[in-house]
Amino acid sequence: MTLADTAEKIAGMEIRGAGRIARAGALALKDHAATVHTKKRDAFVAEMQRAANILLATRPTAVSLPNAVHFVLKDVAGAATVGEARDLISRQADTFVANSEAALDRIAAFGSRHIRDGDTLLTHCNSEAALACILAAHEAGKEIEVFATEVRPRNQGLLTIKTLNGAGITTQYIVDSAARFFMNSIDLVIVGADAITTNGAVVNKIGTAQIALAAHEARTNVMVAAETYKFAPRTLLGELITIEERDTAEVLGDDITRSLPHVRVRNPAFDVTPPAYIDLIVTEKGAIPPGLAYSVIREYLGWSIEEFHKAFE
Amino acid sequence: MTLADTAEKIAGMEIRGAGRIARAGALALKDHAATVHTKKRDAFVAEMQRAANILLATRPTAVSLPNAVHFVLKDVAGAATVGEARDLISRQADTFVANSEAALDRIAAFGSRHIRDGDTLLTHCNSEAALACILAAHEAGKEIEVFATEVRPRNQGLLTIKTLNGAGITTQYIVDSAARFFMNSIDLVIVGADAITTNGAVVNKIGTAQIALAAHEARTNVMVAAETYKFAPRTLLGELITIEERDTAEVLGDDITRSLPHVRVRNPAFDVTPPAYIDLIVTEKGAIPPGLAYSVIREYLGWSIEEFHKAFE
Amino acid sequence: MTLADTAEKIAGMEIRGAGRIARAGALALKDHAATVHTKKRDAFVAEMQRAANILLATRPTAVSLPNAVHFVLKDVAGAATVGEARDLISRQADTFVANSEAALDRIAAFGSRHIRDGDTLLTHCNSEAALACILAAHEAGKEIEVFATEVRPRNQGLLTIKTLNGAGITTQYIVDSAARFFMNSIDLVIVGADAITTNGAVVNKIGTAQIALAAHEARTNVMVAAETYKFAPRTLLGELITIEERDTAEVLGDDITRSLPHVRVRNPAFDVTPPAYIDLIVTEKGAIPPGLAYSVIREYLGWSIEEFHKAFE
Amino acid sequence: MTLADTAEKIAGMEIRGAGRIARAGALALKDHAATVHTKKRDAFVAEMQRAANILLATRPTAVSLPNAVHFVLKDVAGAATVGEARDLISRQADTFVANSEAALDRIAAFGSRHIRDGDTLLTHCNSEAALACILAAHEAGKEIEVFATEVRPRNQGLLTIKTLNGAGITTQYIVDSAARFFMNSIDLVIVGADAITTNGAVVNKIGTAQIALAAHEARTNVMVAAETYKFAPRTLLGELITIEERDTAEVLGDDITRSLPHVRVRNPAFDVTPPAYIDLIVTEKGAIPPGLAYSVIREYLGWSIEEFHKAFE
Amino acid sequence: MTLADTAEKIAGMEIRGAGRIARAGALALKDHAATVHTKKRDAFVAEMQRAANILLATRPTAVSLPNAVHFVLKDVAGAATVGEARDLISRQADTFVANSEAALDRIAAFGSRHIRDGDTLLTHCNSEAALACILAAHEAGKEIEVFATEVRPRNQGLLTIKTLNGAGITTQYIVDSAARFFMNSIDLVIVGADAITTNGAVVNKIGTAQIALAAHEARTNVMVAAETYKFAPRTLLGELITIEERDTAEVLGDDITRSLPHVRVRNPAFDVTPPAYIDLIVTEKGAIPPGLAYSVIREYLGWSIEEFHKAFE
Amino acid sequence: MTLADTAEKIAGMEIRGAGRIARAGALALKDHAATVHTKKRDAFVAEMQRAANILLATRPTAVSLPNAVHFVLKDVAGAATVGEARDLISRQADTFVANSEAALDRIAAFGSRHIRDGDTLLTHCNSEAALACILAAHEAGKEIEVFATEVRPRNQGLLTIKTLNGAGITTQYIVDSAARFFMNSIDLVIVGADAITTNGAVVNKIGTAQIALAAHEARTNVMVAAETYKFAPRTLLGELITIEERDTAEVLGDDITRSLPHVRVRNPAFDVTPPAYIDLIVTEKGAIPPGLAYSVIREYLGWSIEEFHKAFE
Repeated sequence: MTLADTAEKIAGMEIRGAGRIARAGALALKDHAATVHTKKRDAFVAEMQRAANILLATRPTAVSLPNAVHFVLKDVAGAATVGEARDLISRQADTFVANSEAALDRIAAFGSRHIRDGDTLLTHCNSEAALACILAAHEAGKEIEVFATEVRPRNQGLLTIKTLNGAGITTQYIVDSAARFFMNSIDLVIVGADAITTNGAVVNKIGTAQIALAAHEARTNVMVAAETYKFAPRTLLGELITIEERDTAEVLGDDITRSLPHVRVRNPAFDVTPPAYIDLIVTEKGAIPPGLAYSVIREYLGWSIEEFHKAFE
Repeated sequence: MTLADTAEKIAGMEIRGAGRIARAGALALKDHAATVHTKKRDAFVAEMQRAANILLATRPTAVSLPNAVHFVLKDVAGAATVGEARDLISRQADTFVANSEAALDRIAAFGSRHIRDGDTLLTHCNSEAALACILAAHEAGKEIEVFATEVRPRNQGLLTIKTLNGAGITTQYIVDSAARFFMNSIDLVIVGADAITTNGAVVNKIGTAQIALAAHEARTNVMVAAETYKFAPRTLLGELITIEERDTAEVLGDDITRSLPHVRVRNPAFDVTPPAYIDLIVTEKGAIPPGLAYSVIREYLGWSIEEFHKAFE
Repeated sequence: MTLADTAEKIAGMEIRGAGRIARAGALALKDHAATVHTKKRDAFVAEMQRAANILLATRPTAVSLPNAVHFVLKDVAGAATVGEARDLISRQADTFVANSEAALDRIAAFGSRHIRDGDTLLTHCNSEAALACILAAHEAGKEIEVFATEVRPRNQGLLTIKTLNGAGITTQYIVDSAARFFMNSIDLVIVGADAITTNGAVVNKIGTAQIALAAHEARTNVMVAAETYKFAPRTLLGELITIEERDTAEVLGDDITRSLPHVRVRNPAFDVTPPAYIDLIVTEKGAIPPGLAYSVIREYLGWSIEEFHKAFE
Repeated sequence: MTLADTAEKIAGMEIRGAGRIARAGALALKDHAATVHTKKRDAFVAEMQRAANILLATRPTAVSLPNAVHFVLKDVAGAATVGEARDLISRQADTFVANSEAALDRIAAFGSRHIRDGDTLLTHCNSEAALACILAAHEAGKEIEVFATEVRPRNQGLLTIKTLNGAGITTQYIVDSAARFFMNSIDLVIVGADAITTNGAVVNKIGTAQIALAAHEARTNVMVAAETYKFAPRTLLGELITIEERDTAEVLGDDITRSLPHVRVRNPAFDVTPPAYIDLIVTEKGAIPPGLAYSVIREYLGWSIEEFHKAFE
Repeated sequence: MTLADTAEKIAGMEIRGAGRIARAGALALKDHAATVHTKKRDAFVAEMQRAANILLATRPTAVSLPNAVHFVLKDVAGAATVGEARDLISRQADTFVANSEAALDRIAAFGSRHIRDGDTLLTHCNSEAALACILAAHEAGKEIEVFATEVRPRNQGLLTIKTLNGAGITTQYIVDSAARFFMNSIDLVIVGADAITTNGAVVNKIGTAQIALAAHEARTNVMVAAETYKFAPRTLLGELITIEERDTAEVLGDDITRSLPHVRVRNPAFDVTPPAYIDLIVTEKGAIPPGLAYSVIREYLGWSIEEFHKAFE
Repeated sequence: MTLADTAEKIAGMEIRGAGRIARAGALALKDHAATVHTKKRDAFVAEMQRAANILLATRPTAVSLPNAVHFVLKDVAGAATVGEARDLISRQADTFVANSEAALDRIAAFGSRHIRDGDTLLTHCNSEAALACILAAHEAGKEIEVFATEVRPRNQGLLTIKTLNGAGITTQYIVDSAARFFMNSIDLVIVGADAITTNGAVVNKIGTAQIALAAHEARTNVMVAAETYKFAPRTLLGELITIEERDTAEVLGDDITRSLPHVRVRNPAFDVTPPAYIDLIVTEKGAIPPGLAYSVIREYLGWSIEEFHKAFE
C-alpha cells in the first residue's frame, strides 16, 4: 500500500480509531522510506517531511497521528546517511506499532488492579481500553457488576453490553440520564478517552463530563483508560480541542427536522471533563494523575518544545 | 359518571396527569354526594369517607389525588346536617377544580417574570407548567431561545420542540447527555415536577437531577414550575417517594434483552433533585424557595398533622 | 405637608433611605385621610387607593414603600364608616412608624448577641442596621475589631470607619478586593440589605455577593441585618429585582470616558447574594434563616396572595 | 414533690435528659398551682410567674425547660378567675406531658419510614430518638445494618451497640475517626439533637458535624431525630448556643495533665452542624427541612415574638 | 554601566518589572565578567559569585532575579579556564535575554489560541502578558469583548482600558467589586502573575484570588499568562511568598488616616490564588496546568535541588 | 548481622518504621554483597537479586523497602566485574542511608518555613516528620501553638503532647471528633504519611482524611511531611494500597466483643486523603504539590517503567 493509499483511507475513514490510524501512519512512513531512492541525506529527509505532511493533512484534528509521525521521524535529522535514516525510521515505526499493540494489555493489567472484588462499575460509551480493564478484572476472578449507559445518539452502549454479556459479567443497562440515579451504588467509573489535553482535561464521548460530575458529587472515583498517543501535543501550544458536531440525523430524522423550522438539532460528539473530576489516568506507561498529561506528552511521546514549534507552527 | 367509573378510569390510566386525576377525584366526590340519600349526617360522612378510600386506592402513589380528596372533604365532619355537608362538598369540589384550572395561568404569569429578555433557557421533559412559563414570556415579547432535551427513553422532548416550534420560539434540540456541554450558555433551567417532598426535594423525569447538578456547577439558576397539589403530604410523615421502574421495553427491545442473559435493563422513571440545586418553585400561590414545601402542604393544601394521621396511618 | 409634597420629595430623592421613605409614606396616607371630606365609605376607600397609587408611582422599584402603604390600608375595606376607616388608617400608620423606629434597636439587640467577645468582623458598605449590631456589641463590653471595605465607587466605607472610629472600635480599612485576603481572620461578616427576595436572596451594595462567597469558602458566617420592610413582596409573584445601573461618572470621569470610544463604563449599584451563602437574617421580629423570607412577607408584612394580586397586577 | 424539690433535683442533675426535665417542670407547675390559695387572679398569675422563674433558673442553658414552662403558662393571663387559670395550667401540663411521652413513638414511626430495606446506617452517640427510628425499622422487618461510633471521651457508643445487639441488629463498631473511611457504604446517617437553633443548625454530641460533613461529601443523607422541645427559642432573639466544655478528666487523667504544664485539655461536649448538611429533621409533628426550625418554634411551641421578649429580656 | 550601577538602579526601582530586572541582572553579570582580570579560574568564579550576591541583595523578594542569575552562572564551575567561563557567562546571558524577549510573543501566540471567536473576557490589573494574549486574539480576527476592572488602590485598570481602546477592542470598565456580578457572561478570565509557587499557587495583584473564586463558582475558566522566570524557586524549599503591604496613602490620604486614631489602613499588594481555581498557565515553554510549576522550575529554569541549597541556604 | 537476620527482624517487626526498615534493608544488601564469593558477575547479580527477593518478601505491603532495595541494586547489571558491582552496591547503600538520615533535617528545615510566627497548628497522630517541622519552627523562635488529637484507638496523641510539652510548646489536647470544632482557629494542619500513591493521595493514620476534609471546608491549608521513600511505586502499576485492619482489641476489649454476638469491631489503621485536600507535600527533595508524586517516584527513587515491570510483575 503506498503512502497515498494510506492517506486516502485515513481521510475517507476507511482506517479509523485512534490506534489504527496511528499504526497505519507509522507503517506508511516506513514503507515510504523504503521507496525513496535518493542518496542525498538532505533530500531524503525533506521527502520524508513532505510525506509526513501528507499524512497529517488527512485528519487535521486527529490526536494519535501527529504522535505517530513525530515518533517515527524524530531523530532522522541526526542520521549521517540515507541508509542510517531509513533504518532509523524502520526501527522507530516498528517500535511504535509494537508499543501501541502492547499498550492495551498493559492498560488492562494496570487498570484491572484498581477494580476490587465486589465492585460495581459504571462505564459510558464503548471504549476498548476501559472494557479491557473490566474484562481483565473479571478474568482475574473478581466478582464485579457493571452499569452501562445507552450512549445516545449512536447507542454504542449496545456494543458494550454485548461484550460484557459475552464475558458473562452481570450488567445493568440504563439510559444516559439515569447515571446520577444509580451513582450512590457505583464504586468506580471507568471510561476511555478520545484525547487528553496538556492540563489533564479528558475529551471523550458526549455525556462523560456529566457522569464524572455526578461521580464527584457522590465521592465515587473516576478512572480513565487511555494509550499515551491520546495525549494531545498541540494543546501544549495553547490550541483548543475542537469539538466536532456530527450529522444531526443521528439525533432526529431529517424529515422531522425539516418540518420544524424554528428547531435546530445540535449534536456535539464529545465533551471535556475537567481534571478535578478525574482521579487517575491509566496508560501503558503506568497510572498517573490527570495533571501529569504534560509530562507524558514530553517524556513518552518524545516531543520537545522546539519540535512542537516546527511541527505545528 | 359514577364514582366507580371515575375510579376505574383513574386506575386504568384512562384519566392521567396529576391535574386531571385530581379534578376528576374532586368532581366524583361531589357527584357521589348528590346520590347519597341518607338523612343521617353520620352515615353520610361515613359513606363519603368510604367513597374517598375507593378513589385513593386507585393510584396509591399518586400525589395529587389525596390532596384533592382531602380538600373536598376537610370540613365535612363539622357540618350539622346532610344538606349542609353536601353543599360544603359541592362548593369545595368546585373551588378545587377552579383553582386547579386557574393554577396554570398564574404559574405562567409568575414564572414568565423570571425569564429576562435575551435569556437562553433549558427545559427537560414536557412539563405543561414549565412550557406555560416559557410561552408566556415569549408572548410578553421577550426574545428567548430554548434548549430542549430528547428525554430518553420515551422522547417526550419531541412533543416539547413541536410546541415551541409552533409558537415560533427558536429552539435547540439535544440529547440528554449534552446538557452540561451547553450549560455555560444557559441562563435559566425550567422544569416541572411530579411531586415535591416535605423538605423541598423535587421528584421529576429521570435526568432532571443531573441537569440541576450541572446547572448548580455553572451558577445557572433552576426554576421548578408546579401546582401546589404536587406537594406530597405523606412525606411529612417520613414516607419516601417510591421511584417507579417502568417497562424495560421502553429502553431496549425485548428480543435483544432476552438474547443477553447477563444484562438487565433498569428503567427508573423519575429521579430526586435535592433542594440545594433548586432556586425557586413557582406555584399558583406565588414563588417560594424549595425549603418551604412543608408550609405549602400545611397552608394551602389545608392539612393539619392530625388529619395526616387519620388519612394515612 | 400634603401627600403631593411627600410624593414629590420621595420622587426627587429629598426623602431617601428605605426606612424614611416608608415612614413618610405611612404618615402621608394618615394625613391625607384626615383631609378627605366625603361621608361615603366607598368613595373614601377609592380616594385612599388613588392616593396610595400616587405614592407607589414615585419610586416603582422601592421595596419599603409598598410594604408601608399596604400595612396602613390593609383592612380599610372592612371598615363600616368613613370615620372607622380614617381611625384605622391613623392607627395603622402610627403603628407602622413606631415599629419601624423601634426596629433598629431590636435588630441591634438581637444581632449583637451573635457577636462574641474577641470576634473580628467584616462589614461592607454603610448599613445602619449592621452598624447598630456592631455598636451594640461594643457597648455591651465585647472586645471586637472590624474590617471595613472602601466600597467603590462611592466610598461609603469612609462613613463607616468614621462611625466606628467615633465609637472607639479598632478598625482596619481595606480596598474591596482585599476581602478574601483577610477572610481567614474574620469570624463574622455583617452586612445590611436593600431588599430580600421571596427565596431569601439578599440584594445589597455591589460587592456583597463576592464577600459572602469568600466567607462561604472559608467557613465564615454571614449575618444580614434588615428590617422586615426590606422583604420584597413583588418577588413572590415571580418578579425579579431590577439592578439599577448608576451614573458612570461615579466610576470614571466623563472626560476620560468620552476619550475612549471603545470603552463603556458599567456601574451596577447592587448585586444578589444567594441564600446558600447567608447564615442568618436578623430582623426586628427575630433572627431567621434566609429561606424564611417568604414567611416574613406573609406574616409580618400582612400580605395575602390575593392582596398581592390586587396590589401588583 | 414541691416545686422547690423539683427545682433542686433539676439543678442537681438528679433529674436529667431534655425530656424528663421538661415534663418534671410542667408537672411541678401544675402541682404548684394546686397549692396557691389566693382568690385574686392577678396575685395567682404573679405567683405562677415567680414559680416559673425559679424553675428556669435551675439550668439557664437548658432548651426544653423554657419550652415546657411557656407551654403550660401561655394563656394563663387570659383566664378570668383563679379557678379557670388553675384548670388551664392543669390541662396544659397534662397535654405537654402526654405529647412529650407520645413524641418518641411518633418520631420512630416517621423516621423508620425513611430507612429502606437493605440500608446501612451510621449513628453517633446514643440518641433515644435516633435509636427509636432504627429499632422501629428493624421491627418492621427491614434488613438493616448499623455502624456505631465509639463517641469519645465518654464512649456512649458502647450503650448504643448494646441496645442494637439486644435487638439483634447487625452492628459494626468503629472509632470516631473511621466514619469517613466507611461513609461510601453508608446509606443514611441518623443522629439525635441536643438543641436546634432558629436557622436549623443542630447542636449535638461533639463529632456530629464532622460526620455530617463527611456524609455531605459522599452524597449520603443525614436525618436528625428530635422532639420539638429541642428547638431553642432563645436563638430567635439572636442568642448563640453556648457550647459547654466538660471536665478535662474525661479526656485525660488529671495526673498526666498535671505533669504536662504546656498542655491544656479542651473538652467541648457538643458541636454545631450547619443546616446545609442536614436533609431532614424528624419530629413528632412530622418531618421537616432544617430551615423550618423557626416555624416549629413559632407554631408548635406556641411562642410569639412578644412572649419571647417578656420571657427572655 | 557597572554592576554597582545596575544593582543601584534595581534597588532604587529605577529598573522595575520582573522581565526588565531579570534581563538587567543577566547583562550586568556578563559585563562584569568582562571586567574581571584574574587568570585564576577559582578566583574568577568566586568573584562572579560575589557579584551575583550583590545583585540578589538588591531586591531579596524578587522572583525573576535569582532565576536570571542562576541561569547565567549555572555551569560556570565546570569551566576549565577563565576564558571558557567568561564565554559561557556571555552566551548564557545572551540566551537568557533573548528567551526573555521572545517569551511575550510566544505567550501571546499560545494564549490567544485559548480565546475563541465571540468570547467575552475579563482581566484584572495591567499584565503585559495577559494583554498580549488578548491583543493577539484580536489581531487574529477574533471578535472579542473584554471586561476590565478598576484595580484599586492604584487604578491600573485605566492603563488596561487605554490599551484595549487603542486596539479598538470593545471594553467594559467596572469596579473590582462587580466582577462576580458579570461573571456569568464571562467566557474566560485572563490574568498575569507576579510569582508562581512550587505548588502552582499564583501570586498576583490583590483581588485576583476573589475573581478566580467567582470564576470557579460559575464554571468560567481562568488562564494565567506568565513567563517562566515568574516561577519562584525558593518556594521549593518551603519558603512562603511574602505579601508586601504598600504605602497606606494609596488607599486613604494621610490626613484622613491621622484623624481616625482607631483606624488602620491595610494595603496588601498581592494575594494568592490556589491552583484549584486556575485551569492553565501559559508560558513561553507551552501551556501547563498549575500543578506543574515545580517541573518548570526544575526543567526550564535549570535548578537542581543541590543548587537551591547552595543558592538559598 | 546476616541478611537472614535482618529479614527475620523486619518480618517480626523488631525493626519497624518506614525509615528504619529501609535503611536496614539497604545495609543488609551491602553486607550480603561482601559475603558473596563468586567471581562471576552474572552469578553475583543473580545472587543479589535472590537476596533482594528475600527482603521484599518480609513485608510485602511495606512502601520504603522496595524503594531501598531498588536504589541499592539499580545499576548493578551494568557493572563489568563482581568487584565493580560490589563497590557500586556499597556506595549506593551508603548514599541511601545518608540521604534517609539527612531527610528529616531537610524536611524540618523546609516545612518549618511554611509555619508563620503566630500560627496555630493542628497535628494528628505522632509523625516524626511532622513534629520535626513544628519543633524546627519553635526553635527558630516562632510563637506557635499546637492542637494535638488523641488518635484512637492507640492514643499516639499522648506521645505527641509529651514531645511538644518537652519542647515547651503551648499545646491543646482534644479528642479526634473535636477537630472540626476548632478548625476555624487553625492556620495550618501538618501530618505525616505512611504512603503516598502515584496520584498524590496520602495514606496516613485513620482520621487524617476527615481532618483534611474539615480543613478544606474552612480554607485551612494541609501540609504533609514525608520522606521520598514513602512514595509508593507499585501504585504506578495500578496497584491499590491495602488498608490493614488491626486487632479489634485495640478498640474494644475481647470480653465485651464476645458478649455482643451481633456486633463486629472494625479497626482500619489508615485512611486515604485525596490530593484535592492537600496543599503541599514537604520532602527532603523540596516541597511539591501532591500531583507530582509520580515525578518523585520516577526521578528521585530512580524507577523506570521497565524496572517497575521487572520488580513487581
